[in-house]
Amino acid sequence: MLVKDLGEFELIDRLRQILPHGDSRTIVGIGDDAAVLEYHRPIVVTTDAMVENVHFRPDLIDDVSLGYKALTSSLSDVIAMGANPYHALITLLLPEATLVETCESIYRGLKEAGDEFGVRIVGGDIVKSPLTLAISVTVFGELLGARPLLRSGAEPGDLIFVTGDLGGAGAYLHYKNQSHPVFLSPVDEWDLAMRHRRPRPQLSAAEVLANLPDCSSTDDISDGLASELHEIATASQVRMIIEADRIPTLPSLRRYARMAGADPLDFALFGGEDYQIVGTVKSRGAGELLTRLEAVGVRVTMIGRVEDGNPGIDVMREGKREALEQRGFDHFRG
Amino acid sequence: MLVKDLGEFELIDRLRQILPHGDSRTIVGIGDDAAVLEYHRPIVVTTDAMVENVHFRPDLIDDVSLGYKALTSSLSDVIAMGANPYHALITLLLPEATLVETCESIYRGLKEAGDEFGVRIVGGDIVKSPLTLAISVTVFGELLGARPLLRSGAEPGDLIFVTGDLGGAGAYLHYKNQSHPVFLSPVDEWDLAMRHRRPRPQLSAAEVLANLPDCSSTDDISDGLASELHEIATASQVRMIIEADRIPTLPSLRRYARMAGADPLDFALFGGEDYQIVGTVKSRGAGELLTRLEAVGVRVTMIGRVEDGNPGIDVMREGKREALEQRGFDHFRG
Repeated sequence: MLVKDLGEFELIDRLRQILPHGDSRTIVGIGDDAAVLEYHRPIVVTTDAMVENVHFRPDLIDDVSLGYKALTSSLSDVIAMGANPYHALITLLLPEATLVETCESIYRGLKEAGDEFGVRIVGGDIVKSPLTLAISVTVFGELLGARPLLRSGAEPGDLIFVTGDLGGAGAYLHYKNQSHPVFLSPVDEWDLAMRHRRPRPQLSAAEVLANLPDCSSTDDISDGLASELHEIATASQVRMIIEADRIPTLPSLRRYARMAGADPLDFALFGGEDYQIVGTVKSRGAGELLTRLEAVGVRVTMIGRVEDGNPGIDVMREGKREALEQRGFDHFRG
Repeated sequence: MLVKDLGEFELIDRLRQILPHGDSRTIVGIGDDAAVLEYHRPIVVTTDAMVENVHFRPDLIDDVSLGYKALTSSLSDVIAMGANPYHALITLLLPEATLVETCESIYRGLKEAGDEFGVRIVGGDIVKSPLTLAISVTVFGELLGARPLLRSGAEPGDLIFVTGDLGGAGAYLHYKNQSHPVFLSPVDEWDLAMRHRRPRPQLSAAEVLANLPDCSSTDDISDGLASELHEIATASQVRMIIEADRIPTLPSLRRYARMAGADPLDFALFGGEDYQIVGTVKSRGAGELLTRLEAVGVRVTMIGRVEDGNPGIDVMREGKREALEQRGFDHFRG
């Protein structure tokens, strides 16, 4: 059945049934003019939109994963501020010939991500879109520590760390965009596809970092490591130097890059959609950061150091130090 | 210049300069992963999207008014919950051939509305849209009284009130959709055009109603009076009877309807986009409500009464009582 045959209000009723009811912080949930939420500390808010054929290709992501990713990619910004996300609002822009089943699958993915990260969907808007489907997600969270984790706190002498591994999502899109792709083993392909479809922001890491006074800055990696490092360098007015061979990548990514004749580092630096955390820590606190992140199961790697100098990034590679260009995903420059 | 020639980050910088800096409640504003806001009481949140050629026709609304309306129409939901809006996030979906000047005008309208209602824009997202422009606005507010104003509190015996006048925005679209429109005086046309382009939700009314214990329910009028009354009747499980000749309309609307051979009441009942408040009040409190709303310059009209019975609406007209159909704007049924 198509959404135009069901109608807006019937559709909202169906989608609402997929979602769990409110939590102890939800005073008024879905069903009135607005939601009313109980927060005890400063709230952290962010919004992100995903547009069909701009942010995602329907042939590369299933509808459930699309819902999952729409929520988790938005949670990532709140988490990287050192906050625990609790609630979300969802806006769907739908062509009228969208299948009702597509909407329900997207909502099942939203619910799955919500359950995993303890986030309730408390409202939204569903409107007609002339051509393409889009999802806009607004997320609300509460600070985990006494202060937010900003981009602007890095200081010379700090070490640069990154969680998880980088470049997998970018490599998957690169692989799928080739007219004559290399032969990738099914498990390697699945590995990279999961990085694209099911990003999992590092909530456990944020819980640690927010309460570690020596953590001096953080950013989430949505547009690629290079772009986020430039954001920290600019906001903190520092120069940063990273070591190419320390940047963590998946074995599947390295195998793919070798076969495709590509540089694995390019995916990590410029690929984007990793939703890991990059940040800086005073060198005296680096050991504690490693121990405490590993204790909660978060893999963390030191990749460089903060220095005095003109804001910008240098990369050390095979003994040479070179400036790293500020390139990442720009919507209007492609 | 087009947005694709300027690029995403340059565009964001330009738009940001149009906006005032944060307020005392903004701990972190635009420029990091997320905004951090200070709220002292339960927060009220809502989101609304406007899509080109679905919610607005670019030939009927200028870009500044579009920005103004995008914000005020979203504020309306928060206000109707008995809350004071303080912050907003803006998501723009832009075709890459959009003029930078268009974006700047939209932002000047957002700023104008923000200044008028005391709302700061603390972030958002700007993404490429394949075909049409869309604006999605999320608004945050704080309860004005001890409790939110819900749709579900109406009880038999309560009186039904409405603020301002209704139907002007709907009449303007009706007028502009005629292939051979009647001749409307320039001032009447301006009057109706302002109702379409510059809706002003009733913040002063909300301040009064939130602190009036006898106010038993409220809803904002976005889809037409009939639709909102049905929402209250359903949520409260009551029947409501309204008197046709008490529904407040503009003289310009009545003149237009007479010339166009239309029923002025149709615009008030089914037109939508009025962003006034409809609500119910215990009859013992109706006098106080009138006095206190008029003291803050809000025109208010009693239009009917709440009764026992099957949830639904009756309308009294020329001595006859008839059931009122539940019709309003449905995105997918047109």
